[in-house]
Amino acid sequence: MSMESIKELCRKGAEAKFSIQGLSADAKNEALLRAADALLRDSDIILRANAIDCEKAEKAGMSSGLLDRLRLTEARIRQIAKGVKEVSLLPDPVGELLEEFDRPSGIHIRKVRVPLGCIGIIYESRPNVTADAFALCFKSGNSCILKGGSDCLHSNIAIAASLKSALKDCGITEDAVGLIESANRADTNFFMQQREYIDVLIPRGSAGLIRAVVEGSRIPVIETGSGNCHIYIDRDADLEKAMPIIINAKTQRTGVCNAAESLVVHKDIAEKFLPMLRSAMERCGVSLFADSLSIPYLPLAGEATEEDFAAEYLDLKLSVKTVSSVREAIDHINRYHTKHSDCIITENPETAEQFLKEVDSACVYVNASTRFTDGFEFGFGAEIGISTQMLHARGPMGLRELTSYKYLVTGTGQIRK
Amino acid sequence: MSMESIKELCRKGAEAKFSIQGLSADAKNEALLRAADALLRDSDIILRANAIDCEKAEKAGMSSGLLDRLRLTEARIRQIAKGVKEVSLLPDPVGELLEEFDRPSGIHIRKVRVPLGCIGIIYESRPNVTADAFALCFKSGNSCILKGGSDCLHSNIAIAASLKSALKDCGITEDAVGLIESANRADTNFFMQQREYIDVLIPRGSAGLIRAVVEGSRIPVIETGSGNCHIYIDRDADLEKAMPIIINAKTQRTGVCNAAESLVVHKDIAEKFLPMLRSAMERCGVSLFADSLSIPYLPLAGEATEEDFAAEYLDLKLSVKTVSSVREAIDHINRYHTKHSDCIITENPETAEQFLKEVDSACVYVNASTRFTDGFEFGFGAEIGISTQMLHARGPMGLRELTSYKYLVTGTGQIRK
Repeated sequence: MSMESIKELCRKGAEAKFSIQGLSADAKNEALLRAADALLRDSDIILRANAIDCEKAEKAGMSSGLLDRLRLTEARIRQIAKGVKEVSLLPDPVGELLEEFDRPSGIHIRKVRVPLGCIGIIYESRPNVTADAFALCFKSGNSCILKGGSDCLHSNIAIAASLKSALKDCGITEDAVGLIESANRADTNFFMQQREYIDVLIPRGSAGLIRAVVEGSRIPVIETGSGNCHIYIDRDADLEKAMPIIINAKTQRTGVCNAAESLVVHKDIAEKFLPMLRSAMERCGVSLFADSLSIPYLPLAGEATEEDFAAEYLDLKLSVKTVSSVREAIDHINRYHTKHSDCIITENPETAEQFLKEVDSACVYVNASTRFTDGFEFGFGAEIGISTQMLHARGPMGLRELTSYKYLVTGTGQIRK
Repeated sequence: MSMESIKELCRKGAEAKFSIQGLSADAKNEALLRAADALLRDSDIILRANAIDCEKAEKAGMSSGLLDRLRLTEARIRQIAKGVKEVSLLPDPVGELLEEFDRPSGIHIRKVRVPLGCIGIIYESRPNVTADAFALCFKSGNSCILKGGSDCLHSNIAIAASLKSALKDCGITEDAVGLIESANRADTNFFMQQREYIDVLIPRGSAGLIRAVVEGSRIPVIETGSGNCHIYIDRDADLEKAMPIIINAKTQRTGVCNAAESLVVHKDIAEKFLPMLRSAMERCGVSLFADSLSIPYLPLAGEATEEDFAAEYLDLKLSVKTVSSVREAIDHINRYHTKHSDCIITENPETAEQFLKEVDSACVYVNASTRFTDGFEFGFGAEIGISTQMLHARGPMGLRELTSYKYLVTGTGQIRK
């Protein structure tokens, strides 16, 4: 795409936000149901487009794991359509009255929830994100401009066309969703400069993608996704509770941001706990990287380096650090984590309280798996990503987190003295 | 300052946040009272430092208006100390329970308010901001790194030393407030890159300063301050109500961001309203810049250009645009405003409702002066600035807006299925 046409796409998205933010919940839900139907109706077209992407990717030597993410099937399209339908069932966050108060000056103030505006989403190889991101942005009253991975360009074009046709059928501007039809990095960089039109930019994907967006964007960014999640096994831990949580957090899915990557172990229980850990991790095929105090109990472990403590492995690997107090555990975690999700295993309520208070993560756990950091598990019904920054939203971001607010101030002629 | 020492200052500020965020409200209030006392105790030192700044500024030919902002007196220091004391009286936002719920998985989730972390503030010639910004950041549990204007470097160093001595007396780390002792633009640019240490950057000052920070920062920014505020005089306006509001919003203080800069007038009332406007504005010494439909009624007015419609005059100037409907008024405002504060004067509740819903500003008014957009007038007790962006906070930012949240998740061994 030319720079001119990218700019024009963004301008149209910014213009569309004004009509989208005024839509009723019913109108939005109707359009989402139509969009789900359109995806099913157009599944042949979408599959043909996807076949082109897959063929190109195979020729270019894409790994089988990535190819699997890219490939669509009838069943996967049904899944995507179902996801869009489910968003229609969620409560509409727009217009919610958050606060209401009178002031001595005589003015009356209401604080109400409003859409963010026009949201930019930059993502990688999963074509399902195209429908998913549109559904969440649209339901929360936002227009969106999407820039998917170059690998799934044809799939994304087909999916976006399907969504646009549904909007058109409902008499809603097709500019509610814009797709940057480009496989070009310079175009992505140009897109990230469109601060005049795009209110927020959300990257979804690998740590590398997120870093590139954070560093290159002139639009405010919501940083998502990177997770070096810790589990701290306290001196007062119930080790029978600890082991299933560790196994779940480490092995249930390794490629996700809420998987555990680092264990912190109180030295007083190291002798009892580490041999248990060793055999459990051996059974699960997890390689350990241990510090000097724990390595005698973990003879097969590699030596943990600074890089291990900081690593988001996304793999069957786990670092192990011993500490002599909860204080030291908290300091270690606050130094190496990515502010995503960290957990303490303890039966001591005071220690748990200190950990909850002082660990600076979006989600801090006591005696539960970090894998619960998820929009569905939190009951938000959907998720655009997990924020790891401090501004605006932290942790799982559902529909509410795709909104802002404004103040409505009513008077009868009041002026400031 | 060397780049090394700026980095070290930021690193210390980031480290200090962990102890500041754990302080009780009492401990913070005690420290703020001590800080207020320290400013009074050290007022001779601060005044001597300020005299050096003022002398340099005078020699460099600073305008009398700016010199007045820069100059401190005994009375102004008392005012600054009083401001710090008042912050101690405000409720502590940290730790507030925002939500609490159970999930079918058995986990219990609490959403609690936490400090943002380490806040960077970049500001210009008013040395009072040094104490003021510290007080607000500190009370909301944040450490802060301040970068004031080069013109008030000596004043800021003296004020910061005073604040630090109070913290030390209370056994609190002096790194809770850091001052970049530099009068160098390259240092400011380097400071804006310290994303590793600074969680949020807030610029306070002119539109030029804010633009430079928004464009140059790698740290998430809260954009504040720029205000092209509109008043729309609807066909159904009570003109007796309209005139005092316009006079108040335009002339009570011209150099502030919540002052009105643009009038939008329904053409059906132009003939009646514009002559009234003309005489009122003449009495107040306000120059008008009018579009072709309104200029016949405003013979002394200049011709309004696109630049006038977009201008934040901060002066006794006002642009006038006529429209044929509330729809056209809303579109004009959404095109030219800065999302700060916009007002409709009308007695028609339906028209008012449409305006409130569709004008995309932080604060939208019906029949009241835009000058009310202010932390004190909103009842927040303090204000770090007026946000004009969509992310995180909009409108007046008090203590709560200097916080984020985290999720505390407690279980009894739950794992994800």
